Amino acid sequence: MTLSDSRLQDIAQQVATPFYAYDAQTLRTTFSALKAHMPDGADIYFSLKSNPNHAIIGTLAPMGAGAEVCSMPELHIAMKAGANPRRTIFVGPAKSEADITAAMDFGIKAIVAESAEELQIINRIARNRGIVQPVALRINPNFSSSKARIMMTGRASQFGIEEDDIDLTLALLDTCPSVVMVGLHVYLGSRVLDEAAIHENTANILALAERVVQKLGRPLAFVDVGGGFGVKYHANERDLDVDVLGPGLHALISDFRARNRRTRVVIELGRYLVARAGVFVTAVRYVKSSKGQDFAICDGGSNVNAAAAGYGSAFRKNVPMARIGTLNEGGDEVVYNVTGPLCTPSDTIAEKVRLPRLAPGDLLRFDRAGAYGPSHSPVHFLSFGHPAEILVDAEQTTLVRPADSIADLLAKQTRLVLSQGAEGVEDQPVGKALANA
Amino acid sequence: MTLSDSRLQDIAQQVATPFYAYDAQTLRTTFSALKAHMPDGADIYFSLKSNPNHAIIGTLAPMGAGAEVCSMPELHIAMKAGANPRRTIFVGPAKSEADITAAMDFGIKAIVAESAEELQIINRIARNRGIVQPVALRINPNFSSSKARIMMTGRASQFGIEEDDIDLTLALLDTCPSVVMVGLHVYLGSRVLDEAAIHENTANILALAERVVQKLGRPLAFVDVGGGFGVKYHANERDLDVDVLGPGLHALISDFRARNRRTRVVIELGRYLVARAGVFVTAVRYVKSSKGQDFAICDGGSNVNAAAAGYGSAFRKNVPMARIGTLNEGGDEVVYNVTGPLCTPSDTIAEKVRLPRLAPGDLLRFDRAGAYGPSHSPVHFLSFGHPAEILVDAEQTTLVRPADSIADLLAKQTRLVLSQGAEGVEDQPVGKALANA
Repeated sequence: MTLSDSRLQDIAQQVATPFYAYDAQTLRTTFSALKAHMPDGADIYFSLKSNPNHAIIGTLAPMGAGAEVCSMPELHIAMKAGANPRRTIFVGPAKSEADITAAMDFGIKAIVAESAEELQIINRIARNRGIVQPVALRINPNFSSSKARIMMTGRASQFGIEEDDIDLTLALLDTCPSVVMVGLHVYLGSRVLDEAAIHENTANILALAERVVQKLGRPLAFVDVGGGFGVKYHANERDLDVDVLGPGLHALISDFRARNRRTRVVIELGRYLVARAGVFVTAVRYVKSSKGQDFAICDGGSNVNAAAAGYGSAFRKNVPMARIGTLNEGGDEVVYNVTGPLCTPSDTIAEKVRLPRLAPGDLLRFDRAGAYGPSHSPVHFLSFGHPAEILVDAEQTTLVRPADSIADLLAKQTRLVLSQGAEGVEDQPVGKALANA
Repeated sequence: MTLSDSRLQDIAQQVATPFYAYDAQTLRTTFSALKAHMPDGADIYFSLKSNPNHAIIGTLAPMGAGAEVCSMPELHIAMKAGANPRRTIFVGPAKSEADITAAMDFGIKAIVAESAEELQIINRIARNRGIVQPVALRINPNFSSSKARIMMTGRASQFGIEEDDIDLTLALLDTCPSVVMVGLHVYLGSRVLDEAAIHENTANILALAERVVQKLGRPLAFVDVGGGFGVKYHANERDLDVDVLGPGLHALISDFRARNRRTRVVIELGRYLVARAGVFVTAVRYVKSSKGQDFAICDGGSNVNAAAAGYGSAFRKNVPMARIGTLNEGGDEVVYNVTGPLCTPSDTIAEKVRLPRLAPGDLLRFDRAGAYGPSHSPVHFLSFGHPAEILVDAEQTTLVRPADSIADLLAKQTRLVLSQGAEGVEDQPVGKALANA
């Protein structure tokens, strides 16, 4: 299902470590296994925030996946990689007028408005363009998900329109003739690993949608029920069982669709689709002992794989990882702290893990690393830059993002004079490049 | 001392928010105030990890600051910005052979070796080049700093050579004729805000250095006593008083130098020198209420200023921030949660702060933001990219790092076929650019 050690060793011959490798076949299999359970009228959208590499949406879009984007760059990536604008939605609490304009330029399915103010801005821009812009309302419902690791609703939040303000918002829409409400969006939370909780969350959202439709007096084109499906990372977790989850959702959505024939149901998924398709590979540079503990110091650490270091969590837990291959196999095992190249003790990406005895040059694989990898890491810490990304598709290996080079980095270190005092400063050409010192 | 609101408003007219602005005069003043207390033979080195923008080391180096680099990119930045290689040291637990070679190419003061194995690698490379390479030993002493927010010593660590292994290491050096030990490096920990603790730490390190010199039987060229001087970020903290700290260090170092006339003392500082020189500026895009709380949603959040979001800490605390200027001043104040453009509730950069009533377009300033800014943030989250960086030097305003553009981002999204199976895959040109879909 995932990438073999020997395949990763081959890649390490061609691309400097650290790197990320993504397996197209795993992506497709994960998508298809869930899609097979969905009834007609249910769509799966890929959330680019989980992995913005064009190769991921580029692999999923031809299978029918839509795209959920949350920024103008994500919108451009999705469009360039071949996502269907008619299956693309733009979410996010801080959209600028330029963002909204870009969404209109591409003719996407809907802009998901997160506030009354945003609706009015969209209306004004659409009116000036002489169009009627499809929008969906993101609702912050009064209910929440009890099983989400990160809860997003049922409390004060920057996201969406309050459930209690729906009537006001529908009245506002009546005064905005250049927008048309075509959908509803609710996102309860992330990393849910309980099938019953997902079922209940989805049921609650579909019931809310029916209440809104009743107020609206006409059908919606779609309801986005969010997603938040998790994957197992830690020893005390288990993966969702798609054969339990799928039939339950099928029944729920079919039932909804029987009453709402013109309304499609969108499930947006990031981590669930891409996490298992990715492997992070880093090479051991040094092995040492300190006060009774053994350390394996690697060329990539929390700077490129912050998730493994627990960055953003209160406490780190080990994620799945292993040594690659059988090099230097002496049969014995050692308990290691695996660390990166940074000058901080928090740069620990595996703590007290039992591994075959390591030597410099050994490769380590961190599995389930396809989501929230480099894009969620401080890749410029110590100026190492973004690591390479690879797509593996059957026999083909493609570099889908080169590592930043020192030349890339230095090219960004400009010295462009924007303004200077009226006098007392000698003339200096505007745009002068950084001279070699 | 720091940048005025009106100056930041001027910059915001020229550069899109969010951005960082650094004040050269504050950098110089902070450096000079400490340097004035230092006796002959004491040097201050700037740690590029705290801010790798060339403008920072480029401002400090002409004042006599050395450079502490921890990666090959940092080495290149420092050299290109005019740092003196004779005042540059290269620290870091995971140096590659290429890193060591680059350090030799530039002829820096010393490579700081963090293990016996690294010493042997340096010796081998130096022998092959026919040179004798100056090195310093980084020691993980048995003592620690009681007042550091991040403790680095006195416990198992990936950093440095164990104090108990010094004899073994000196014996190893006798077998490494292509390296010469010229210095000692000890780093106890970060963010110390207690003058007495810094005094005691420095005294402990200098005493350790004298023990090592006695074993070595000859003087060292330098002892790097680390640094770790903090700055006040939170309400319950206070800044170090340089007029208390300085004279104490002066006496300590003078005393050490009286017995070790040929040994210079290096203090390496990052955050202390640069934090107060930097301001992060973000613009309000939307203001909204949710369940009794008010939110100001900005165009830059934890993606570009992770420190303000408490990323990497167990719990976030508010850092110094304020609204810029007097626009929309109605006299009333509101308690806001200030959030960024991300789709996660953790994207909060100020929590329940009392501010003048905000409106879209208002600018917010986050002060003391010069250290561990974009380089310590997940700048590619939601693909927004690296923000612009500005150097203000008296009347002159210089763009010292442009924001990443969408074109920059898309240019990195390559589709370069590295290998494909021997058969069964149709020919495809290697290096094929990502086609417009």
